[in-house]
Amino acid sequence: MNNLVFNEKKKRDFIAIGRIGVDLNANEIHRPMEETETFTKYVGGSPANISIGMARLGMDTGFIGKVSEDQFGNYILNYFEQDGIDTSNIVIDQEGAMTGLAFTEIKSPTDCSILMYRDNVADLKIDPQDIDEEYIRNSKVLQVSGTALSKSPSREAVFLAIDYARKHDTVVVFDIDYRPYSWRSEEETAIYYSLAAEKSDVIIGSREEFNIVESLTMPKNENDQATAQHWFDYNAQIVVVKHGKEGSTAYTKEGESYDIKPFPVEVVKTFGGGDAYASAFIYGLMQNWDIDKCLEFGSASAAMLVASHSCSDAMPTVEEIEVFIKEKKEEYGERVAST
Amino acid sequence: MNNLVFNEKKKRDFIAIGRIGVDLNANEIHRPMEETETFTKYVGGSPANISIGMARLGMDTGFIGKVSEDQFGNYILNYFEQDGIDTSNIVIDQEGAMTGLAFTEIKSPTDCSILMYRDNVADLKIDPQDIDEEYIRNSKVLQVSGTALSKSPSREAVFLAIDYARKHDTVVVFDIDYRPYSWRSEEETAIYYSLAAEKSDVIIGSREEFNIVESLTMPKNENDQATAQHWFDYNAQIVVVKHGKEGSTAYTKEGESYDIKPFPVEVVKTFGGGDAYASAFIYGLMQNWDIDKCLEFGSASAAMLVASHSCSDAMPTVEEIEVFIKEKKEEYGERVAST
Amino acid sequence: MNNLVFNEKKKRDFIAIGRIGVDLNANEIHRPMEETETFTKYVGGSPANISIGMARLGMDTGFIGKVSEDQFGNYILNYFEQDGIDTSNIVIDQEGAMTGLAFTEIKSPTDCSILMYRDNVADLKIDPQDIDEEYIRNSKVLQVSGTALSKSPSREAVFLAIDYARKHDTVVVFDIDYRPYSWRSEEETAIYYSLAAEKSDVIIGSREEFNIVESLTMPKNENDQATAQHWFDYNAQIVVVKHGKEGSTAYTKEGESYDIKPFPVEVVKTFGGGDAYASAFIYGLMQNWDIDKCLEFGSASAAMLVASHSCSDAMPTVEEIEVFIKEKKEEYGERVAST
Amino acid sequence: MNNLVFNEKKKRDFIAIGRIGVDLNANEIHRPMEETETFTKYVGGSPANISIGMARLGMDTGFIGKVSEDQFGNYILNYFEQDGIDTSNIVIDQEGAMTGLAFTEIKSPTDCSILMYRDNVADLKIDPQDIDEEYIRNSKVLQVSGTALSKSPSREAVFLAIDYARKHDTVVVFDIDYRPYSWRSEEETAIYYSLAAEKSDVIIGSREEFNIVESLTMPKNENDQATAQHWFDYNAQIVVVKHGKEGSTAYTKEGESYDIKPFPVEVVKTFGGGDAYASAFIYGLMQNWDIDKCLEFGSASAAMLVASHSCSDAMPTVEEIEVFIKEKKEEYGERVAST
Repeated sequence: MNNLVFNEKKKRDFIAIGRIGVDLNANEIHRPMEETETFTKYVGGSPANISIGMARLGMDTGFIGKVSEDQFGNYILNYFEQDGIDTSNIVIDQEGAMTGLAFTEIKSPTDCSILMYRDNVADLKIDPQDIDEEYIRNSKVLQVSGTALSKSPSREAVFLAIDYARKHDTVVVFDIDYRPYSWRSEEETAIYYSLAAEKSDVIIGSREEFNIVESLTMPKNENDQATAQHWFDYNAQIVVVKHGKEGSTAYTKEGESYDIKPFPVEVVKTFGGGDAYASAFIYGLMQNWDIDKCLEFGSASAAMLVASHSCSDAMPTVEEIEVFIKEKKEEYGERVAST
Repeated sequence: MNNLVFNEKKKRDFIAIGRIGVDLNANEIHRPMEETETFTKYVGGSPANISIGMARLGMDTGFIGKVSEDQFGNYILNYFEQDGIDTSNIVIDQEGAMTGLAFTEIKSPTDCSILMYRDNVADLKIDPQDIDEEYIRNSKVLQVSGTALSKSPSREAVFLAIDYARKHDTVVVFDIDYRPYSWRSEEETAIYYSLAAEKSDVIIGSREEFNIVESLTMPKNENDQATAQHWFDYNAQIVVVKHGKEGSTAYTKEGESYDIKPFPVEVVKTFGGGDAYASAFIYGLMQNWDIDKCLEFGSASAAMLVASHSCSDAMPTVEEIEVFIKEKKEEYGERVAST
Repeated sequence: MNNLVFNEKKKRDFIAIGRIGVDLNANEIHRPMEETETFTKYVGGSPANISIGMARLGMDTGFIGKVSEDQFGNYILNYFEQDGIDTSNIVIDQEGAMTGLAFTEIKSPTDCSILMYRDNVADLKIDPQDIDEEYIRNSKVLQVSGTALSKSPSREAVFLAIDYARKHDTVVVFDIDYRPYSWRSEEETAIYYSLAAEKSDVIIGSREEFNIVESLTMPKNENDQATAQHWFDYNAQIVVVKHGKEGSTAYTKEGESYDIKPFPVEVVKTFGGGDAYASAFIYGLMQNWDIDKCLEFGSASAAMLVASHSCSDAMPTVEEIEVFIKEKKEEYGERVAST
Repeated sequence: MNNLVFNEKKKRDFIAIGRIGVDLNANEIHRPMEETETFTKYVGGSPANISIGMARLGMDTGFIGKVSEDQFGNYILNYFEQDGIDTSNIVIDQEGAMTGLAFTEIKSPTDCSILMYRDNVADLKIDPQDIDEEYIRNSKVLQVSGTALSKSPSREAVFLAIDYARKHDTVVVFDIDYRPYSWRSEEETAIYYSLAAEKSDVIIGSREEFNIVESLTMPKNENDQATAQHWFDYNAQIVVVKHGKEGSTAYTKEGESYDIKPFPVEVVKTFGGGDAYASAFIYGLMQNWDIDKCLEFGSASAAMLVASHSCSDAMPTVEEIEVFIKEKKEEYGERVAST
């Protein structure tokens, strides 16, 4: 068991708000994108990937967002609906906005980059008027992606969604998801990330991401425990700090901490692991599992994703994760992901 | 005495952040502006007026803001310096921004309007990088004008200033100062006003202004006590709700409330009274006066202003307010401004 | 007589398109604007001044432009109507644009400057859809102010107006009226000024202004005759190059040139002379006067303006100019303005 | 022979200015894009395609344009260099602009559409300062794509390039290439297209495109001969009006006209034919061929392109076009493309 309480009277398990786009993944990999000839399209964007992950894990899932009124917008809606994700709160833009694109370049398993098309992007046009208080009231969890704070009116829509969530006891999970290209300055980033994090129950980010968030209020802090305590002084119950292949640590307001390491896999690319981790970790919290079991589940799902070609299509089911963990433990020993 | 604690170790009494501009007041009044032939220039803008008010009351006063690099910017700096207001944290814009203008039209004492020039305005270009943590740490009070929240980067500069104030025990006084022309939508207004008000120690506004701030979270509320309690649940200690010529009420977190009515004067115009009220009321709080005495002082200063031609130049001294109160009480009785 | 033919079947004498605003002239002069206490308002903007000048000279005058929907817009319309200028093609903006302001600073008769408010300015919002082909077809002259080329959609509106004028034998008078603050770059300026000048019958500008216009096609040219010839190769009939107090020269396509010097007056300010010059010079051309008489009339009107406080209100009548010339010749000799 | 004179002293045969981007062509065709799984990337954009066509035809070719500083920009430069196209006047953007994308959807050979990504696009950021007078002076032909007129600063860069071309006897070929998504209004389009067409030697466009260009000056004209005459009154020597599968007609200033019909082929898609037509037609003019032979060559190249998957990679050589014409005449008779 863990320290979060999910209101079981709420009908829907999980909704996310924020970035939703199309990934175009190089088919000919291990070369620069200049030499890539063809691309395969997938649904992408961190909160979209997490939502697909939650749906695959059997959760009743919905999404708050905005897509373009074109073939790519249609594609996203179709894909979500096929996965059983509720799209009633995804608005179709009427002002000529575009679906964001992410062209992936995989030069080697550890040298990956993304070429983003984010100008005039539909997901950042979600407006406070698009936010339905009832939709948020009826969900156990609201997952917020920090990139959605980078521009108005999406920024205001997120603050309103968080206010509704707090008002109605919907657990707020804040995934920092920092993408520098969307922001005007580091100061602006720190200010809005802080305002959102102060109102969140669960905060997930890498050490580098927390450094950005704390750059004005706790400059030069590298202490994860201090970071966690800073947010516990506001409304946080759980703070997860990630250190890449070194593993990650979950801190609780009660003063405990839990570590996890990555599972050993043959890595295809560096993308998508974090979204799989988040979805499986939140899933575990919602099952009222102990936090170390949640972390193991998250870490396993992350490992499965970085070994695959997509960031969304490859999201595993509960059974697939369980089989994966079982196999890895048989191969590497029971404490394969322990620190 | 009142429920606020001002840290006496801080050197400066009062600093304000926000709007600062030039008023051009019609000399030929009681006619439409089309027929006005000449205008007299004054320093203007709510927090600028309040700062001038504080300086006239003998407080060690400073200002955080941005002015244009032209004759009007110079004029504002000169005027402040002549009044002894510290201008070390007023930045001179280098990007071609303009000082905001307010042309006043006084058709009759109760039919006044303002023609604003606020495009590309310097005061809204103040940037988080212009905010000096030490300057805020060294002041007993930070007064925030809500209009400064209406646009980036001023919006972010204000949130950062408030964070520094809270971190260093500087009392945050939030004057709602709602001006619809600066904002994109009422939703946006409500969201940012709420985020600022949640972090403020003293909140001052009219009933109509509080309705805007609460439009998403407490729609249709007209109950001043409920308004006050909403903000006491965050960080507020005192909430003042103004009802124009009906008077105003100050609520304290301890559950008390105090009423005041306007002093009788021959009104020249409707502008500027609120700024005089705010400066004299805050002055009283800083003298550790009882709240009803603070209110009387504020109400007297407001009455003096609406009977004059400017919103800044006419700000009275302590002695002038005391004489005014004494004379009014002699003329109308001791309870002239009591409800 | 001169080399221009004005179609006498057209009902209206003169229409101008472009800048129209409010001047706020310092009343306390011979000091920096910081120390100016009051300002007097006048209608302003080069083509507006020229139009007022033409109306005072008895011409049937109209204007194509856009004004703000506020007191200053009303004031301009009222003023024009009192002067008998047709306002049927002045559009009232509905999108929140502002009337441009020009605060004048007169430190000394030769040290004058202007503080302009030109952000979001109504006159640059005139749109091709606001241009009425019949209105232009029915006028003998279309006067174009170059500043109207500085931004879309006014830029396109001017090109359309010029096309209609050429199509219908309306004489196009192009006043360069270069104001650097409106333009993005000198290259942009040169390109659009050239496109307009190529289609104009009369071009008026200072040597410095022609240098800007020719900066890409005839860089470093300082030869007025070469300038004139360049435009005669397109559609120009008359080119006037001004050299400030040194006087100015009118060149004709037939190869003649005529010089004029300023009349001696006690100068109050440097503004407004050019607009008076343009209106009286065009008036003379329309009377079929010889060019040297047109120049003398223009120079006289210019001298009268720089000796007065406003740029519009002081525009003289024919009789007033005639009296002025007569008096100056009596005082200084017949060749007072000859070179 | 034809009525154009190309200055043989100029070293380079052909340069184009304007749009340059990446096409992403659906691999799984005959279905909506929502169901397309993979895309193949090609260089695209009308003037880029024409330049590739000219290079394949053996012409010494260069390009004036701007590309993004990323993998797609590199890809375009690499592709041009492999085709022997001079890239010395292609600027690499330093301000975060993106290469334009065109995702093609081929539902059926006659039902094709394009999903464009054109926000913040690099090709429209080419600036007058990027235009090298010598580069234009040294080329026999400057081909201008009308889309480059749709936004500043590209618009001004094109006007400057045309001015340099006229000054130095470089033949200006203007391809209307109207794409409504780039323009603010039809009025704006008509105004700038006219200003450019007035200065062009050869103008190529469809009937629908000429209707847009003439919408203000010759509204409702559907007469191709009247269209041609309108531009001959300015500087045009040849005007080509295209009527899709009905064929097209070339008019000369001398009063002649020549018709051509499409060659019969199995059409894969409707894109790219016009660019092949333009390159082969201009090639023919530069060989001093009779105009009917130029048209046949253009029509043949167009037919070859619409039967292929790309708009650039499939551009044919002279020999390939000659073989194609020979085979079609053997199959369908000598007058296969005659009207």
